[in-house]
Amino acid sequence: MFISELMSVNDVVDIISKYQFLTDSEVIDLDDAYQRVNVDKVLTLHDSPPFDKSAMDGYAIIASDSFSASNNNPVSLEVIDYVGAGSFSDKKVKSGLAIGIATGSPIPEGADAVIMKEYTIPSDDGMIDIVSAVSPGENVAFLGEDVKKGDLILEENTFIRSQEMAMVALSGYSKIEVYKKPKVLVINTGDELVEPCEVLPPAKIINSNHYAMKGKIESCLADVTMEHCIDDENVFRNLLLESVSDYDIIVTTGGTAVSKGDVVVRMVGDVGEVLVHGIAARPGKPFAFGIVNETPIFMLSGYPAAAFVLFDIFVRPFILKLQNINYNHKLVTCISNRKIPSNLGRIDYIRAYVEDGIVNPKLSRGSTIISTLMSANAYIVIEENREGVFEGETCDVLLFDSFKP
Amino acid sequence: MFISELMSVNDVVDIISKYQFLTDSEVIDLDDAYQRVNVDKVLTLHDSPPFDKSAMDGYAIIASDSFSASNNNPVSLEVIDYVGAGSFSDKKVKSGLAIGIATGSPIPEGADAVIMKEYTIPSDDGMIDIVSAVSPGENVAFLGEDVKKGDLILEENTFIRSQEMAMVALSGYSKIEVYKKPKVLVINTGDELVEPCEVLPPAKIINSNHYAMKGKIESCLADVTMEHCIDDENVFRNLLLESVSDYDIIVTTGGTAVSKGDVVVRMVGDVGEVLVHGIAARPGKPFAFGIVNETPIFMLSGYPAAAFVLFDIFVRPFILKLQNINYNHKLVTCISNRKIPSNLGRIDYIRAYVEDGIVNPKLSRGSTIISTLMSANAYIVIEENREGVFEGETCDVLLFDSFKP
Repeated sequence: MFISELMSVNDVVDIISKYQFLTDSEVIDLDDAYQRVNVDKVLTLHDSPPFDKSAMDGYAIIASDSFSASNNNPVSLEVIDYVGAGSFSDKKVKSGLAIGIATGSPIPEGADAVIMKEYTIPSDDGMIDIVSAVSPGENVAFLGEDVKKGDLILEENTFIRSQEMAMVALSGYSKIEVYKKPKVLVINTGDELVEPCEVLPPAKIINSNHYAMKGKIESCLADVTMEHCIDDENVFRNLLLESVSDYDIIVTTGGTAVSKGDVVVRMVGDVGEVLVHGIAARPGKPFAFGIVNETPIFMLSGYPAAAFVLFDIFVRPFILKLQNINYNHKLVTCISNRKIPSNLGRIDYIRAYVEDGIVNPKLSRGSTIISTLMSANAYIVIEENREGVFEGETCDVLLFDSFKP
Repeated sequence: MFISELMSVNDVVDIISKYQFLTDSEVIDLDDAYQRVNVDKVLTLHDSPPFDKSAMDGYAIIASDSFSASNNNPVSLEVIDYVGAGSFSDKKVKSGLAIGIATGSPIPEGADAVIMKEYTIPSDDGMIDIVSAVSPGENVAFLGEDVKKGDLILEENTFIRSQEMAMVALSGYSKIEVYKKPKVLVINTGDELVEPCEVLPPAKIINSNHYAMKGKIESCLADVTMEHCIDDENVFRNLLLESVSDYDIIVTTGGTAVSKGDVVVRMVGDVGEVLVHGIAARPGKPFAFGIVNETPIFMLSGYPAAAFVLFDIFVRPFILKLQNINYNHKLVTCISNRKIPSNLGRIDYIRAYVEDGIVNPKLSRGSTIISTLMSANAYIVIEENREGVFEGETCDVLLFDSFKP
């Protein structure tokens, strides 16, 4: 039935990792770069701020003119110009002179400080009275104080959030080279599968894997195309051969176990190579992995709950890493609030709900049961060498929240 | 300068919450429902499984026929039919008979158990030998064992993940009513703003807020339109009036402080109502909030770091709740690894990096400084009534990760 003994999940991960690659890169508008990963380092073309600028609304002055100023002893200065946002003054500040200035505007030549408007009193004839002293440099944001021209702004292979978008823009770039979004084809196989409907034909079931896989692949930030295929060797093989060069990976559901005559696995073997078939995991034993024309094919069990787990364990990390998004499963330790039986020799992934470090395993563990996934926010992971967990004992937990890129 | 005393952040949140609304609903393809929120309860139209089905590949039999079976004492049965996936048998299993069955196929009439293929030995003349006993019900997944027709599958107002997509499909629906994606207009104001470029014109700076806001609004799962506007009352007012009815909310940056003559705040007041102007927060003091034709206008400071914080504190929760995504800031407690000065009477939001419960505040706190946001993964939040944090003392922290819907 399976090509060998059931393989351990760790061995499967090792095999799959040999086929990990990165998508090609493309240059895109920085506007579209949210949640992408840049290819090259970004060095800034600009100092930031790009000039000495005022950090306040007020007057650009020579600080020493203000040293004796106080409420009782104001200093009078002549206002010779005003600099608004985006403009600059071609006048020069000398002792006894001031230039009105807006926050963010360039400090005029000669001035070395800005006195806040609040500490000045306008008088009639183009003069202001200064009623407080400022030190040289006060209320000035200096050229290059945040970053200096040529500074490294973004390391290569950085996941781009809004702050990275802003900094790359400030560095002078409106385009950026990033890894392409992975293109994923999902083929849900099965003669028994129908679209959601009000009255089910006899022996048919609704193709819920279509929707589970659609959502999951979107959660991995990839582009997804969905296909349904009947359990027919030729139809499946033709679909595979037609599609394989258009996608970075193909994910199938169903057709991996004897019941379907292994249609999927046999046809992948027929036109390519099957490297894994049958793993020591529950749910998900009839998982297979193969390569057709260098394209990895992840063959998931058709059981909804099994397909769900298999995707998260094997496919999710692969799709994220295709885009160079750094991802590894992060297990946390929780205390189980009940006894969980498990068999030696296989990994168990048990749908569970975690709150405040206490994990509550879901009772119904059948691989046809997906309703329990809705109240779940984690898998309990019971390794091969562990024979279950006692109530009150610690166990490893994989939180669904940790899947978010 | 400001319409009143500086308002506390809590008071501002209270005022804004009075204008919270939900977007209209729309019926969409279930295929597109990932990360949307459904409006109504979903009751399933189907039992799941929809019929008693085989959980294994093997033979449907009457269990009592197998009770005496063992390797040394096999029981011989006549195979009268085979049921593949998606098909059913119109034959009836009686004592002495068996029907071959694939996993997931309907149990034929008369049978009450499935014996796994592994425990059978085919013999020539359409007979099999059974070498193990099964109990009634063994290897059968019963009709409605996961969910029963009419069961509540999805509460109203549920955030839809891949498992909810799958369950709604199983319930018989290929469409779902959800809250519309919020439509957000961002207007970055400022004569000094230019697009990213290699050589900056004098006194100009790059419009990094455009990119920060673009990314941030995408992170809130909303549709965003970006505009730049010069510091001109009429131009801004016209843009506001033309746009206001097309968007759920408008977010502006710049033009909220005296330096710009408060262009933005004054024009919002001119055509609508300004409810907040000036808050007791750092960065972000010159925040304003107003209403024009019932559309909320969030007026953020033009300082990049201030706009960044103000968005996260006020705008993010509002946009998420527009879609009925349940969101509230979740503060966690960390230990500061250095002293953090802070003033009484205002909230400080300090960019910081948290690891293992230890929080490292970023030194450069100027509101023009956004480079520190790239190495940050959290804000330290120091409330109004706290005069800073000592090294080794606990403080409240808002993790960026908690923003992910």
